[in-house]
Amino acid sequence: MASHKEGTGYTTAVAVIGLGSMGFGMAKSMKRAGLEVVGYDITQSAVERFLAEGGRVAATLTDAVEGADIVVSVVVNAQQTEAVLFGPDGIARAMKPGSVFISSATMDPAIARSLAERFEALGLHYLDAPISGGAARAAKGELTIMASGSPEAFAAARPALDVMAARVYELGDAAGIGAAFKMINQLLAGVHIAAACEAISFAAKQGLDLQKVYEVITASAGNSWMFENRVPHVLAGDYTPLSAIEIFVKDLGIVQDMARAERYPVPLVAAALQMYLAASGAGMGRDDDSSLARLYAQLSGAKLPSKG
Amino acid sequence: MASHKEGTGYTTAVAVIGLGSMGFGMAKSMKRAGLEVVGYDITQSAVERFLAEGGRVAATLTDAVEGADIVVSVVVNAQQTEAVLFGPDGIARAMKPGSVFISSATMDPAIARSLAERFEALGLHYLDAPISGGAARAAKGELTIMASGSPEAFAAARPALDVMAARVYELGDAAGIGAAFKMINQLLAGVHIAAACEAISFAAKQGLDLQKVYEVITASAGNSWMFENRVPHVLAGDYTPLSAIEIFVKDLGIVQDMARAERYPVPLVAAALQMYLAASGAGMGRDDDSSLARLYAQLSGAKLPSKG
Repeated sequence: MASHKEGTGYTTAVAVIGLGSMGFGMAKSMKRAGLEVVGYDITQSAVERFLAEGGRVAATLTDAVEGADIVVSVVVNAQQTEAVLFGPDGIARAMKPGSVFISSATMDPAIARSLAERFEALGLHYLDAPISGGAARAAKGELTIMASGSPEAFAAARPALDVMAARVYELGDAAGIGAAFKMINQLLAGVHIAAACEAISFAAKQGLDLQKVYEVITASAGNSWMFENRVPHVLAGDYTPLSAIEIFVKDLGIVQDMARAERYPVPLVAAALQMYLAASGAGMGRDDDSSLARLYAQLSGAKLPSKG
Repeated sequence: MASHKEGTGYTTAVAVIGLGSMGFGMAKSMKRAGLEVVGYDITQSAVERFLAEGGRVAATLTDAVEGADIVVSVVVNAQQTEAVLFGPDGIARAMKPGSVFISSATMDPAIARSLAERFEALGLHYLDAPISGGAARAAKGELTIMASGSPEAFAAARPALDVMAARVYELGDAAGIGAAFKMINQLLAGVHIAAACEAISFAAKQGLDLQKVYEVITASAGNSWMFENRVPHVLAGDYTPLSAIEIFVKDLGIVQDMARAERYPVPLVAAALQMYLAASGAGMGRDDDSSLARLYAQLSGAKLPSKG
């Protein structure tokens, strides 16, 4: 692998596992910043998109991580993360000594802890580093990363973190803490989207001027980041998935499972999750999460704007 | 009543019905701005507080509104508003022709419409004008007012609106629309407080650094106006009521009743309302609405900060 860096003659080598909308953007950011990037994905179309950007790809997982200083995993969940690390073609035994695995999937903190323990026992570093910010910010290298791990893991991951993120929160010295912060964020995000949709379709049911509702609420105590961000999709009648219903079926499901295990009641999460499940069951699972507004409208006869 | 105003020799005369924390501040703002203000409250301590500020008070409702150009009603709910207007000592038949009644209580829009109709039939003007902003902004004349009513009602109310509010939304030409906007705001506000408390106590249950959670969430997609505003009460362990649990028992109750009548499902409101009811039942009804965090902690053994 090529290797040079100002003053040292060395370029950090990075493997990106998962070239979906987030992983593709993160790989692009790192390539643009001069890191030596190799990508891997099981989906041919994702591979081709990265090749078309001038990216390098590997044919197998173990090929991808050969010689890598940093492996960034941008897969969907804990199961896929475990498969990447410890599955039949798993990378845990192929990574070079002292290298770091950056795990960005949203997962139960207990699973993050357990994966990290197994991985670190091999003499490697694990950074629990869930991401937030969406595909556009991934491509610009402006993600928010909620990270925890050993000082060695942070040090080894630094060249990738610096170019992928506008903001890296260092939340603790062990895996699981980053995951726990991310789940608190997802709890709120998922409930707020559902609340925004419950409210805007209720306003529609009453025949209120929805643009005016948006204007008043975003300037009032009822505002949320999600109301401000998602309600414009409803006003435009555009449910092109920027983030899909299924993401919150997954994430609120994790929160509910964690809470049940800890004997902690989450009535708001439970109510919101039922609405995401209903939207998915009604065929909107792959549509934008603001589709909950359409679900409320279907259930009540409220009239929402259609795509203009 | 005294009467002069630059250029015209006339000072607008205002009666303020209800001198609680909001009404007191609104009366003060109008007095400071040079309006001729008379206050009324059934509670002696509220009367004395206004007298101590140099305010004038009346002994009866009908005395208070005698000669008033504008009556600002700052009572708690629809029942009290109806009693002020049409009760045994009601003001509807004592107000002078062409004067305006500004109703600030949060209520079901259908009730606002019906009160306005009865009142307007007497040749008087009714402005449906729920307020938002809290006692501190009331005292500074910086409320947000969500108003609807006839052009005549707006014109007659203008001198009072201008000095009470930093922002007056003109939402439509009939009573009920202002009320409906306010209920949409309360739906979101009530759910967001409950979500903030569900989240912060869940973070506590997991042993996370709560100051760090506040820092990360307020900079992330999980943020809401209410999370940002209320969680500091929890972090300080200070549940002095700035807004009480009972306010949302009332307001989410109104939303739930409206929604039931319109055959509109509100699962998030329903879940949140149960938590406010539980907090009230557990003895926290008059405490700050962030007391929901204490309820979650009691139910789960989570440890929250205590007052330092």
